Amino acid sequence: MYLVAMGATKILEQATSNSFAIWFLIGAALVFFMQCGFAMVESGFTRAKSAGNIIMKNLMDFCIGTFMFVFLGYGLMMSEDYIMGLIGLPNLDIFSNFDHFNYSQFVFQLVFCATAATIVSGAMAERTKFSAYCIYSALISLVVYPISAGWVWNLAGKGWLQQLHFVDFAGSAVIHSVGGVAALIGAIIVGPRIGKYTVRRKTGKVKVNAIPGHSLTLGALGVFILWFGWYGFNGAAATNNDSLAVIFLNTTIAPASATVVCMIYTWIKDKKPDVGMSLNAALAGLVAITAGCASVDALGAFIIGAVAGILVNIAVSVIDNKLHIDDPVGAVAVHMVNGIWGTIAVGLFATGRGETVNAFADGSVYAGLFYGGGFKLLGIQALGIVAIDIYAAIMMFLVFKLIKHTIGLRASEEDEMAGMDISEHGLASAYADFLPIAPAYMGESTGPIDISDIEPAHLNLSSTTTGSTLTKIVIVCAEEKFTVLRDTMAEIGVTGMTVIQAMGCGVEQGKTGRYRGVNMSMNLKPKVKVEIVVSKIDPNLVVAAARKALYTGKVGDGKIFVSQIQDIMRIRTGDTGYKALQDEN
Amino acid sequence: MYLVAMGATKILEQATSNSFAIWFLIGAALVFFMQCGFAMVESGFTRAKSAGNIIMKNLMDFCIGTFMFVFLGYGLMMSEDYIMGLIGLPNLDIFSNFDHFNYSQFVFQLVFCATAATIVSGAMAERTKFSAYCIYSALISLVVYPISAGWVWNLAGKGWLQQLHFVDFAGSAVIHSVGGVAALIGAIIVGPRIGKYTVRRKTGKVKVNAIPGHSLTLGALGVFILWFGWYGFNGAAATNNDSLAVIFLNTTIAPASATVVCMIYTWIKDKKPDVGMSLNAALAGLVAITAGCASVDALGAFIIGAVAGILVNIAVSVIDNKLHIDDPVGAVAVHMVNGIWGTIAVGLFATGRGETVNAFADGSVYAGLFYGGGFKLLGIQALGIVAIDIYAAIMMFLVFKLIKHTIGLRASEEDEMAGMDISEHGLASAYADFLPIAPAYMGESTGPIDISDIEPAHLNLSSTTTGSTLTKIVIVCAEEKFTVLRDTMAEIGVTGMTVIQAMGCGVEQGKTGRYRGVNMSMNLKPKVKVEIVVSKIDPNLVVAAARKALYTGKVGDGKIFVSQIQDIMRIRTGDTGYKALQDEN
Amino acid sequence: MYLVAMGATKILEQATSNSFAIWFLIGAALVFFMQCGFAMVESGFTRAKSAGNIIMKNLMDFCIGTFMFVFLGYGLMMSEDYIMGLIGLPNLDIFSNFDHFNYSQFVFQLVFCATAATIVSGAMAERTKFSAYCIYSALISLVVYPISAGWVWNLAGKGWLQQLHFVDFAGSAVIHSVGGVAALIGAIIVGPRIGKYTVRRKTGKVKVNAIPGHSLTLGALGVFILWFGWYGFNGAAATNNDSLAVIFLNTTIAPASATVVCMIYTWIKDKKPDVGMSLNAALAGLVAITAGCASVDALGAFIIGAVAGILVNIAVSVIDNKLHIDDPVGAVAVHMVNGIWGTIAVGLFATGRGETVNAFADGSVYAGLFYGGGFKLLGIQALGIVAIDIYAAIMMFLVFKLIKHTIGLRASEEDEMAGMDISEHGLASAYADFLPIAPAYMGESTGPIDISDIEPAHLNLSSTTTGSTLTKIVIVCAEEKFTVLRDTMAEIGVTGMTVIQAMGCGVEQGKTGRYRGVNMSMNLKPKVKVEIVVSKIDPNLVVAAARKALYTGKVGDGKIFVSQIQDIMRIRTGDTGYKALQDEN
Repeated sequence: MYLVAMGATKILEQATSNSFAIWFLIGAALVFFMQCGFAMVESGFTRAKSAGNIIMKNLMDFCIGTFMFVFLGYGLMMSEDYIMGLIGLPNLDIFSNFDHFNYSQFVFQLVFCATAATIVSGAMAERTKFSAYCIYSALISLVVYPISAGWVWNLAGKGWLQQLHFVDFAGSAVIHSVGGVAALIGAIIVGPRIGKYTVRRKTGKVKVNAIPGHSLTLGALGVFILWFGWYGFNGAAATNNDSLAVIFLNTTIAPASATVVCMIYTWIKDKKPDVGMSLNAALAGLVAITAGCASVDALGAFIIGAVAGILVNIAVSVIDNKLHIDDPVGAVAVHMVNGIWGTIAVGLFATGRGETVNAFADGSVYAGLFYGGGFKLLGIQALGIVAIDIYAAIMMFLVFKLIKHTIGLRASEEDEMAGMDISEHGLASAYADFLPIAPAYMGESTGPIDISDIEPAHLNLSSTTTGSTLTKIVIVCAEEKFTVLRDTMAEIGVTGMTVIQAMGCGVEQGKTGRYRGVNMSMNLKPKVKVEIVVSKIDPNLVVAAARKALYTGKVGDGKIFVSQIQDIMRIRTGDTGYKALQDEN
Repeated sequence: MYLVAMGATKILEQATSNSFAIWFLIGAALVFFMQCGFAMVESGFTRAKSAGNIIMKNLMDFCIGTFMFVFLGYGLMMSEDYIMGLIGLPNLDIFSNFDHFNYSQFVFQLVFCATAATIVSGAMAERTKFSAYCIYSALISLVVYPISAGWVWNLAGKGWLQQLHFVDFAGSAVIHSVGGVAALIGAIIVGPRIGKYTVRRKTGKVKVNAIPGHSLTLGALGVFILWFGWYGFNGAAATNNDSLAVIFLNTTIAPASATVVCMIYTWIKDKKPDVGMSLNAALAGLVAITAGCASVDALGAFIIGAVAGILVNIAVSVIDNKLHIDDPVGAVAVHMVNGIWGTIAVGLFATGRGETVNAFADGSVYAGLFYGGGFKLLGIQALGIVAIDIYAAIMMFLVFKLIKHTIGLRASEEDEMAGMDISEHGLASAYADFLPIAPAYMGESTGPIDISDIEPAHLNLSSTTTGSTLTKIVIVCAEEKFTVLRDTMAEIGVTGMTVIQAMGCGVEQGKTGRYRGVNMSMNLKPKVKVEIVVSKIDPNLVVAAARKALYTGKVGDGKIFVSQIQDIMRIRTGDTGYKALQDEN
Repeated sequence: MYLVAMGATKILEQATSNSFAIWFLIGAALVFFMQCGFAMVESGFTRAKSAGNIIMKNLMDFCIGTFMFVFLGYGLMMSEDYIMGLIGLPNLDIFSNFDHFNYSQFVFQLVFCATAATIVSGAMAERTKFSAYCIYSALISLVVYPISAGWVWNLAGKGWLQQLHFVDFAGSAVIHSVGGVAALIGAIIVGPRIGKYTVRRKTGKVKVNAIPGHSLTLGALGVFILWFGWYGFNGAAATNNDSLAVIFLNTTIAPASATVVCMIYTWIKDKKPDVGMSLNAALAGLVAITAGCASVDALGAFIIGAVAGILVNIAVSVIDNKLHIDDPVGAVAVHMVNGIWGTIAVGLFATGRGETVNAFADGSVYAGLFYGGGFKLLGIQALGIVAIDIYAAIMMFLVFKLIKHTIGLRASEEDEMAGMDISEHGLASAYADFLPIAPAYMGESTGPIDISDIEPAHLNLSSTTTGSTLTKIVIVCAEEKFTVLRDTMAEIGVTGMTVIQAMGCGVEQGKTGRYRGVNMSMNLKPKVKVEIVVSKIDPNLVVAAARKALYTGKVGDGKIFVSQIQDIMRIRTGDTGYKALQDEN
């Protein structure tokens, strides 16, 4: 009977292990789906003119990463021949040791590696050369990520941080902080997008400009997909039902807490609850709970999430407003800052008991500072995150500098203006049938041009019919010049204008686009049509100033049309003619 | 040998139970993903100017709901101390009873609760104050839903409907009808969107206007995600393979049946198969099968779905055309009407045998009316749905009335016109880089203004070059005034106009927007440019009428420009000048 | 002791089998989710004016297919009464044999069948009558697919290809090549979209025009969803952990390999890495690995994927540029070509050992040509794919011809121009609130009209103010006529124009649209406003040529306005008046 009872326990253990092996792979599929989430978040929160490029980067860091991880990365990370706790001796067991290779583990580690790689693309969006991104992506999957990941997750348990009992269950440090550090270094070295930070001509102060993304719904879709996938990300490595339940609980509570706290924070600070920030906060809460998802309890998850909800706000603001680092999607604030916080938080909130026990090989259990464990685990966590992130920072600095000084990291100014889609991929637009132009009308300009030395034009106005002093000036120009024109017109006293999205077709020939292998004629180009009516202001001055503001000397500068208006009425006041154009205030 | 055989059965039972415990949590993750589906459906089927607001509501009802459900709701619903079958004595076991708390069950119940809460946001979209929605969302998760859910699903089996053997496997009644009743009460109390129902000035009859959503593809994406998630919603609580297979079968057949029947119904009734309605029908079929998914057979699922496909059509029409209740996404027709139908349908189609046995603790099995069970189960089902929905209606009436008379339920008319995104969240647009204006040109107006007492304007037309009698009048005004202008122009005999989407920039300053924490200048405002050419009609009359139609006295009323056209030709006829402007019919 | 050990193995086997039964259904849900992926890919890569129609087709082939598969298809495929290895005797066990019917298997086979059906909709998009599509969809699910699928997957193992040990684990041949062949036959019989292939008037050569889709992000979303779902598609039928792991590995490596190879291929060939093609390549790699996912090793998957990445490029190019078959989403290149390749590839790369053993009932194992198995398996694979695809081609030819000669296959030219949404579904636009017009400005025209015999118009230009020779001609016309107008204007020497998206409202009444059951007034119609300024060219000629280019004799031809411009300046050169209009080159 005793033997049978023994057998029963073992059979059950094996059966459970088999079930969890299926879940392990389902979890891996969910983590793969997070690539979709990243692609949607990053394209939604950036501009339409580079949407295809962002998609391509997200697709490619997974696909290129697969090559790299197969051929070298996995070996560096997981090899049983692990040297001094620091690095594995790679092998090609995946090809040669067919019968005994752990394919499940490989697939699982591969999708995790791709997550680390993809974090960077958002931070460097809209101005990084695609070829440079491919090389970065190859290098992070080939060596940078696998080495530090091996310290914590080596399959043979030989990583030095593993042996110190460093806790990072699903990768706040290993994945998110490494990806976030890479994003930070990349964003600094590639520099901000044109127009993101402008220097006021008179004061010399830096003005921070918002560059809104093209689809909040796409961004939100991505956040929901990421959250959904995160149940696999955090839960896949669980090996028993209690542990999995706690992980799901914490993976729900922490982001919920972060989102609510962020909403309240922005409501108080900015008077209105911020949508984009709340979406970022959900991700921040998820990143922060990733390290401790199997080690903390519901209260711990609440607090970790709440802190993440505040941290992401402060970090976004400091990075943008103080440090002037252009991170279009907030990757550094979400992944680096909260990856660090989540890793440290294990040292504070690990319960050291019950379902949430830290599974060390020697059976030892550490609790965090607030749960009676003293500073020991906190110290280990701090040591680990510092070591990992300094390592990552040095490696990524070398990688990006290497790229910068060889093939170049940043797209040309002209390419950036035109958008990465047309310049890097020959793609007319990601929305070619939908929206031929991307309106860039809301941004700030570098300020009006200097109008002090302008000489009025010599228009043929002599034929103007007697009795009217109203002149209509229509300016057709390139989109990217609009903001300067607008501010210049204001400078000379123009009080109103009408702006129309238009397509211009002239003697200049546009770039030739390509769509799914077929060439398409692009001699229609996006233009802005600006209509101004003046009376007191000399039309000759308006035209001369507009010309100076728009002049580049290149084909495509546009045209100015001058005509006559019989009369004009302002509805509110009933004023007509000259009076209708004057500012009453 | 006998003992070993015994052991084998028990071991297998335990192993299966462990496997299904994993599936239980995977199912919960799928139900979470339905939040994404709701967000996409609701934003797709409403207007672009409130897309960010809908996203925020969907995000927040989950996140706020998590707080509420943790602190009170779960206890009210699931407590073992359950008073008179009606309500549980809440506790905070989740925090204090760490080792024995059922975390799986909690996560599962939480994502279900969030589903009930999120149904309402679509029905009240585009005109409800965000703060009011947050409070509603907190209250439904805190008390309204948990109480009636406990009647059916209390973990200790002490709910009064449970004890009557009321069948609602996955929540047609508990979740969908409750969410749908809340949506109905909310939509009634908050009232219809501006312009949804207009009263004809002459006849006094109510005209029902369609307000199309901004993205059918987004809506369809949401429907597909919901259907996918529904396999988890209906299946998560299954405990053996046969039962799970039947649930998957029914969860496939019922919505397929509803969709095909709806397509045929609209094809016959409206001459063309309706896309939006068919998408709604898929959801209706899913809602209807939710109660009986484990109790009916394939034929039952076919019929339940088919009825749902008809019901959703009739309900949408009655609610909109007869009752004049504005439910932008059809939440009441889908969730309330079909939630009720699905609950009743169990009393008709429950087989009472085999894989679909109703799992009552005492082993008793009830069949539905059409399967030889008589009226007993039907009566229980009817009693249950009536009790639950009356309870929900009363509670939600109190909740919305409370909100209305304290902080207010509805956004101001000005805020609604501008859209919830800018007014509630300071978000310039969910598609700021993509589409600066949301065209509102297709709607119906409140009718033309009274033109009987208009005094013609005194334009400076004297300088018109001899020989031409064609005058071009260009009107630049706010989008929301366009429909009145259009109808007024028709009233005075104008037979044609050209409308252009434009951005206007004048002496008036627009609201300051904010994007991810950074202020952005918004002095460009969406405008409509309307161009009219008249010959027979006195331009002075056109201008005066337009002014009267557009006048509000506020900054931003717009301007009218008058100029001269040399000639005009109608292509079809070759007519020129005066004749080209006359209606031939 | 021995008996206990025996028992343990059996218990464990049973427990594992129970776990995999859950996974089998989870896999089916993932395959269902692929319907969402197809809907997004197909709508994203086609035009906005038919987006609702594509969604409806994707929804309906699943829903109609469910009806058909329940009532006949499943029996034809899976029946135990299987005649001569060719076809099953259908029964209605699903309704009558409630207790012993294999519901899991049915659900699983149903979602697979729907995948085959849905492949076609993309290839025939934007010009196929909806009623015709419904009938096609019914017939493929009712008889075409089930018969050949039974040859390979009959549940009783009685299919003739099964008995030959033909290997098609998840359906490269059975699903994808059949769907792809149907797509090819359908695309040929329905013919290309208007404007896809134009014949040059002078040379008589066919010009291939790109017709870009309306949303690459939607398309990319679909690809990611498909890849995610493919883990279920390929993995669902696995029955042990090792096999499942190998399947996941191969399902990751093959598409990654295809995508990287495709990127490099397009980079070399077209100088820039193509986004849309790379997305297609990911799908091509997935299709190609589907047959052999459980039979090949990592190296095999790499090579199969790499070949797929090249094949899809060549196939798209040949189909479009050489064969002039219009396949808007590349369904034939992805599913047919790579379905065939994947099936053949098993005969080359099947390892015949370890985890990847081909599970034949008699225990025999075949290896592919490159793994020492000789030509035997390759021959079987070749025989199988030829038999299946010839069968499918004949059946689909009959189906489409039958439809063509009864109710008709293709929408009218007028309906196609207007878009399927309005013509087939009465849906004003899938983006009614978002974008009232779909810009069709980038396409090629059928060439300019013949201008040799044009007689100048007789405009009233006598009143032109002395001193100016600049005339502004504004043409308001229907979108679909724009490209002809543009090319005609170029033909008469016009060197520049401005095009504005506009809404026109005239005496003609637009079609009445319907949205969610409510009628909406559509008297505003999408128009193009074209502004041309001429000096040297006689305005009377411009107007006459424009009129001839635009004339159809129907209501809605548009109007031409002529006015006077005082002056014009070209910014780049500072030229004014006449000079500003002349081409310098």
